[in-house]
Amino acid sequence: MTGRQMTLAALGGLPLIAPGDALAPLLIAAAERAGLPFADGDVLVVAQKIVSKSEGRYVDLRGVSPSARAQELAARLGKDPRHIQVILSESAEIVRAERSVLIVETHHGIVMANAGVDQSNVSQEGGSERVLLLPRDPDGSAAALRAEIGRLTGADIAVLINDSVGRAWRQGVVGLAIGAAGFPSLVDRRGSPDMFGRPLEVTEIAMADELAAAASLLMGQADEASPAVLVRGFNRPKDVPDRPARDLIRPKEMDLFR
Amino acid sequence: MTGRQMTLAALGGLPLIAPGDALAPLLIAAAERAGLPFADGDVLVVAQKIVSKSEGRYVDLRGVSPSARAQELAARLGKDPRHIQVILSESAEIVRAERSVLIVETHHGIVMANAGVDQSNVSQEGGSERVLLLPRDPDGSAAALRAEIGRLTGADIAVLINDSVGRAWRQGVVGLAIGAAGFPSLVDRRGSPDMFGRPLEVTEIAMADELAAAASLLMGQADEASPAVLVRGFNRPKDVPDRPARDLIRPKEMDLFR
Repeated sequence: MTGRQMTLAALGGLPLIAPGDALAPLLIAAAERAGLPFADGDVLVVAQKIVSKSEGRYVDLRGVSPSARAQELAARLGKDPRHIQVILSESAEIVRAERSVLIVETHHGIVMANAGVDQSNVSQEGGSERVLLLPRDPDGSAAALRAEIGRLTGADIAVLINDSVGRAWRQGVVGLAIGAAGFPSLVDRRGSPDMFGRPLEVTEIAMADELAAAASLLMGQADEASPAVLVRGFNRPKDVPDRPARDLIRPKEMDLFR
Repeated sequence: MTGRQMTLAALGGLPLIAPGDALAPLLIAAAERAGLPFADGDVLVVAQKIVSKSEGRYVDLRGVSPSARAQELAARLGKDPRHIQVILSESAEIVRAERSVLIVETHHGIVMANAGVDQSNVSQEGGSERVLLLPRDPDGSAAALRAEIGRLTGADIAVLINDSVGRAWRQGVVGLAIGAAGFPSLVDRRGSPDMFGRPLEVTEIAMADELAAAASLLMGQADEASPAVLVRGFNRPKDVPDRPARDLIRPKEMDLFR
């Protein structure tokens, strides 16, 4: 075996996550069950859902009073006005509201459908109508999880939090990094020479999004059997700094598509 | 070791690719050198550049006469009018031309900067000023490579062709599938139940783009040491058909961002 290799392993067997659950010990145990106890240089990719669940980011639609704006949008899009109200509360701006699609900029700055507010894979108890929000500070959530795993295991790992997001011109969703810690989320290659010594035309690489997409392939969508993926052998470029996932958000003044 | 695992291995040691070179024997040899001879179920991800080079998709700017439209755009964007002319020839439509960025829809339907026309990592001989175009039919190129590797090795593999592409609202480029063969590029999950039996809200997954992004991480950008990546252990969902990469292109009538 020669050359560079990267292995992604689905971490399974986690229980259903409830508000207040500490994820670090559950993920450490899952990595050990997979025969891959965390080691320096590993990257742990965690699905947004279990982070949000552990942080109790639920809203019960039964307690939501839709505004006039939410009612108007809901009628236009054919949606539940209470659900629309929650999306609006999580949004800084509506980017598109057409053809039963509501694309917004979240308070984090992420452009995505429905502000990531989701009812899939959310348990309902006692007649509840809960929806799940994104973590309030995904980079902070990633940093906290990274620190706690480091404290418990001594391993210096990186943590990404991913979610599945649509794109402007492409069908289907892909995994995207909404949170990152200890990872060069965006790598600036400006000034690097190409193989013939000319400056590269491609200048920045969204490495956290690429690895988040890779991990999505092992997580599946229909169940939470594998809400985390361990990446071993990620070939971190030399001399590049850690950057949070928020650095992947294009500043609005550079946005050509709003 | 338990659970699902996927391994990506960079395939290196390929020579510079010239027009007419047969890629299949070179990639088969590279996989063998890596200790991973092709086996049923493998996915081979190949960088667009070497496919284009083997297909001789060069244009020498010295022979290009820019149209008035190309000259006007070049002046506005601060670019070489001959390069702009080549991009226009490869484009069905200009999507944005602002701030030195030219985003087009290629004849394939892919929305990307500069129609993928690139001068990085292109050798220049005898004073040439060559640029490299995308393959004319990337799904066809992937299918031909897949068939030839199958013929030579007996292995039933999938082939993706990837390129690095920008996004509307995100910084940095990510790997994207522009060609695919033997692979479920877009997987329709409509009707699948979530873990509590309700229909999934996420309905289609762009698996080829996710795997193309993963492979990009091992290819690097500054050299062609690894213009191909072998993926072993891709967990193909049951009962989903092969779909070409062109199925990942959002039909224009469903596009909210032009």
